[in-house]
Amino acid sequence: MPEQERPALPPNQLRLRRLGIDTYQEPVLYMHRDCHVCRSEGFEAQSRVELSLGGRTIVATLNVVSGDIVSVDEAGLSEAAWRLLQARDGDQATLRHPAPIESLGHMRSKVYGKRLGAAQLDAVVQDIAAGRYSDLELAAFITACAGDRLDIEETTALTRAMVSAGERMAWSTSPVMDKHSVGGLPGNRTTMVIVPIVAACGLVMPKTSSRAITSPAGTADTMETLAPVDLEVAQIRRVVERTGGCIVWGGAVRLSPADDILIRVERPLDLDSPGQLVASVLSKKIAAGSTHVLIDMPVGLTAKVRSSHAAAVLARQLELVGKALGVKVLVVQTEGQAPVGRGIGPALEARDVLAVLRNEAGAPADLAQRALLLAGRLLEFGGATAAGQGAALAAQVLADGRAWRKFQDICEAQGGMRVPPVAPCQQPVLAGHAGTVIAIDNRRLARIAKLAGAPIDACAGLDLHVRPGELVERGQPLFTLQAETPGELGYALDYALQADAVHVMEEAR
Amino acid sequence: MPEQERPALPPNQLRLRRLGIDTYQEPVLYMHRDCHVCRSEGFEAQSRVELSLGGRTIVATLNVVSGDIVSVDEAGLSEAAWRLLQARDGDQATLRHPAPIESLGHMRSKVYGKRLGAAQLDAVVQDIAAGRYSDLELAAFITACAGDRLDIEETTALTRAMVSAGERMAWSTSPVMDKHSVGGLPGNRTTMVIVPIVAACGLVMPKTSSRAITSPAGTADTMETLAPVDLEVAQIRRVVERTGGCIVWGGAVRLSPADDILIRVERPLDLDSPGQLVASVLSKKIAAGSTHVLIDMPVGLTAKVRSSHAAAVLARQLELVGKALGVKVLVVQTEGQAPVGRGIGPALEARDVLAVLRNEAGAPADLAQRALLLAGRLLEFGGATAAGQGAALAAQVLADGRAWRKFQDICEAQGGMRVPPVAPCQQPVLAGHAGTVIAIDNRRLARIAKLAGAPIDACAGLDLHVRPGELVERGQPLFTLQAETPGELGYALDYALQADAVHVMEEAR
Repeated sequence: MPEQERPALPPNQLRLRRLGIDTYQEPVLYMHRDCHVCRSEGFEAQSRVELSLGGRTIVATLNVVSGDIVSVDEAGLSEAAWRLLQARDGDQATLRHPAPIESLGHMRSKVYGKRLGAAQLDAVVQDIAAGRYSDLELAAFITACAGDRLDIEETTALTRAMVSAGERMAWSTSPVMDKHSVGGLPGNRTTMVIVPIVAACGLVMPKTSSRAITSPAGTADTMETLAPVDLEVAQIRRVVERTGGCIVWGGAVRLSPADDILIRVERPLDLDSPGQLVASVLSKKIAAGSTHVLIDMPVGLTAKVRSSHAAAVLARQLELVGKALGVKVLVVQTEGQAPVGRGIGPALEARDVLAVLRNEAGAPADLAQRALLLAGRLLEFGGATAAGQGAALAAQVLADGRAWRKFQDICEAQGGMRVPPVAPCQQPVLAGHAGTVIAIDNRRLARIAKLAGAPIDACAGLDLHVRPGELVERGQPLFTLQAETPGELGYALDYALQADAVHVMEEAR
Repeated sequence: MPEQERPALPPNQLRLRRLGIDTYQEPVLYMHRDCHVCRSEGFEAQSRVELSLGGRTIVATLNVVSGDIVSVDEAGLSEAAWRLLQARDGDQATLRHPAPIESLGHMRSKVYGKRLGAAQLDAVVQDIAAGRYSDLELAAFITACAGDRLDIEETTALTRAMVSAGERMAWSTSPVMDKHSVGGLPGNRTTMVIVPIVAACGLVMPKTSSRAITSPAGTADTMETLAPVDLEVAQIRRVVERTGGCIVWGGAVRLSPADDILIRVERPLDLDSPGQLVASVLSKKIAAGSTHVLIDMPVGLTAKVRSSHAAAVLARQLELVGKALGVKVLVVQTEGQAPVGRGIGPALEARDVLAVLRNEAGAPADLAQRALLLAGRLLEFGGATAAGQGAALAAQVLADGRAWRKFQDICEAQGGMRVPPVAPCQQPVLAGHAGTVIAIDNRRLARIAKLAGAPIDACAGLDLHVRPGELVERGQPLFTLQAETPGELGYALDYALQADAVHVMEEAR
C-alpha cells in the first residue's frame, strides 16, 4: 500500500533495568502500560516477548506495570532474564513478537495422547533448552508425559534429544564410570568417598554433581568447602587425566540444559514421571561421556521410590534406555529410611566425609557402609575386580589410606585443598524429656538447616547427635545448630523448638 | 522442650505495598530477601504464601526481591493479589505457610489417568475457586483434562462442581431462555438483537455476557456503550421482571468463578478440551438459572470448531451433560468463516446493532440474518411458536419495531439508554491496487482494532468497508481506523499498513 505515508515511530528499543526480582527461572519482562513499545506492538500481561541484545535473544513473559517501578522508556527484567541476556544497566534491547513455536503443536499432540517421534521430541527439547517455552507450557509438557505416558521408545528419544541439546564430553579411555542417587537423602555424600576409592583402583570416574536446589546442600556445595568445583571442560579433563577422577559442579558444563529447565517446573508440581526421571538421569550421564552408570536407588516410605516393586519397574526402564543409547546401567536398591551421616549443611557434611576417608574413630558408620557397598559394585561393574570381590577391595583401599591420598590428589588437581569453615554461632537443642528417639523427620531437619543459612553459608546447618531407637535423657542434646550469625541461629532455633523434628517418646512410668 | 528460652521474634506481619504489576491473574507476593518473615519462615522464590487481612485470606506465589522495589518490612503485591485481598496502602497483613491442599492429590490422580469422582472434582473446583492453585497447578489440571480425558460422567460432575462453587440465580418463571456462542467471531453481536426479539415474544431471557479478554470487544463492552451493564443481582432481577430480558455483565454476579480462573490459563495454552468447554459453558448457564440454552456453534476453518463432525461430537456432549443437570440444550451450527457486521470495537459494533434493530437501510444484513436464525430457533425452543414458525415470527417482531422498543425498554431498565461515542480520529486504509478481495484475516483485524484502543477506548476500532469476493479500485478505502488519540491512530495505522489484513488479489492483465 505504497501511496500512504507511514508515521515515523520510535524503534522497538528500551533501556534495560535490573529489578532484582527472583522469579525462580522464568524470564519475566516488566513494561509500563504507557510504554510506546507496549502500545505499538499490542503487548499485554502474559504476552511472550522476544528481547535481543548483542547477538543474544531470549523470550520473556510480560508483566504490565502501572506503578512507578519502571518508567515508560524502560524494560525491567527479572534475575533470570537479566542473566540469560547478560545485560548491564542502561543497555538498549530490541523487543518484538517472537516467531511462533512450532514444537508447541507436538506438545499438544502429546497432551491429546499421541505418541511422539524422535524428530518431534527433538524439536520440543531444542525449544525448551533455548528458553522458548513459558512456565505454563513447560507444565503442560511435563503433565502430558507424567505417569506412564512415555513408552520406552519415547523415553529413549527424549533422552537422546536432551543429550543433543547441550554440550557433550568425550573421553579417550573406557570404561568411564559414573553414579547417580535417585531422590537424595539428607547427608548422603557417598560420592565423595566412592570417587577416590574407584579412581584409586585404576578406573576413570569424572563425576559432575549438582548444587542444592531445595535441599540444605548438594554434593557440589559440600565438595566446594574442600576444593574449587567450578571448573571448565578443559580443566576437568586435566584433573581426570592426572588423577583418574574429579568431583565438580556440572552447571558450568551445560550438560543436558533442558533437564535443568524442566526440573524447576517439575519440582513444585511434584508429579511422578518415570520417563522424565530416566531421561533426566541418563541424559546428564551420557552427555558427560559415561559408559557405566550405577544408580543408587534408596527405597523407603519417605524416599522418592517407595517400594521394591516400583524400584524394579524403574530399574528396568533405566536399563532398557541405557542399552538403546549404548551405556551400561546398573541399579542398586539401598535403604532409604534415615538420613546418612551426622552433619546437614555443606561444611558439616564435608567433615563427615573427611572422617570416613581418614578412618577416624568417630566417623559415621552408615556413610562409610553405603559408600563401600556402592564403590564395591562399581569396581565389579567396571571390571577392576571379580564379581563378589568389590566390597572387600573397596574396604581395603579405604582402610589402607589409598582412598584418602587419592581424594587429596583430586582436591589439589581441582585447584587446591581447603579446610571447611566452622560456624561461629552454635547452640544445642535439648531433649525436653527422657525417652526413646522414635522418629527423625528429614524434611524438618532440612528446613532447620536452611533457616540456619545452609547452603549459602557453607558453615551453617546442624549436627545430629542421636539415631532412631536411641535412649536419651532429659536435657541431652538432640542436635546442635550451627550458623554464621546470631540472627540466623535465632530463626533456626525458633523453628527447631516448635518443629519436633526429632521425636522422643516418653517412657511409660 | 520447655527449658529452652525461645528468642523473641517479630510477628509474621508486613506492611502491604501495591506495586502495580499486572501478572494477569496469579496473585504474586514480592518480599525482600532480607525480610525477617522471609528468613524466619524459610520462604523462597516460588513458595506459596498465605496472606490474611481483615478476615480475607489468599494464597500467593512468592517472588524474592534483592533490589529496592520493596523494603525489608514490606510485602509488595501484584494487582490480582491486591484486588483479592481488598488491601489499602499501609495495611498490615499476616503471612504464613498455607495448609497443604489435599485436592492436589486428586489432580495428580487425573494426571496419571484415573477417573475422578464427584467428590474429588468438587474438592478440586472449590480449591480453584478459592484461588489456592498456582498457575502451574492449574496448567497441570487443564492438561490432565484436555483432549478426550474427561468422560461424560466426569464432565457432568465437573459442571456441577463449578456451579456449586459460585453464586446461583433462581427465577420463579419457566422457561428461562439463554444463548451462548462458542468461539466468537469478530462483530458477532447477535445477542443484542436476539434478547429483545425473544423478550418481545413473551419469553424470559436474562442474559449475562462477558467483557473482552483477548478480543477488541465483548458483548458486555458493546452493550455498555448503550446502557449500564454492571448490575447487582437484585437490580438484574428488577430489570427482568419489568422487561422480560436483560443484557448485563456476568462478572459482578460471581457465577461459576472457577471458570474465570481456569479460562485465563487455558487461553495461553490453547489446548482443545471438550470436557472443559462443556463445563465452562453450561456451568455459567446453570448458575444463571437458565432452563433452555441455545448454543450457537460457528463452524469454519479459522473458527474454534473446524468441522461439522467435531461440532456434532461437541453438541452431543453438551446435550448429554445438560440433560444430566436438568437443562435443555439445543446446538445450532452456523457459518463461521467471515466476521459479522462492519464495525470492530465496542461503539462501532453497537452502531451495527442499532442499525439492525431500527431496520435502517444500510444495516449489516449478515448480522440481521444470523440474529433472526438464532432468535427463531429460540422462539420455537421456548414454545412461543410452533416448529418451523420461529424465523418468520422473529422477522416480524424485528420489522414492526417491537424488538427496537423492547431493546429501549431494557436499556432504560438497566439505568438509561446512552448514545455510543464517536471516535475523534479517523483514517481510511486504502487499497494499494485494484483487484478482488480474496481473504480477510480476522486475527489481524482484531489486533488493529486493539492497537487503535479497543476495548478500553469504547469509540476505538475499525470499520470494514469490503467483503470477501468484492472488486475494489486502487485507492478505494478497505477499512477506516477509529481512535481516541492521534498516537493510537498512528500505532494502528503503522501495523495496518504492514499487516495485509484485507488481501486484494491483482487482476491478471
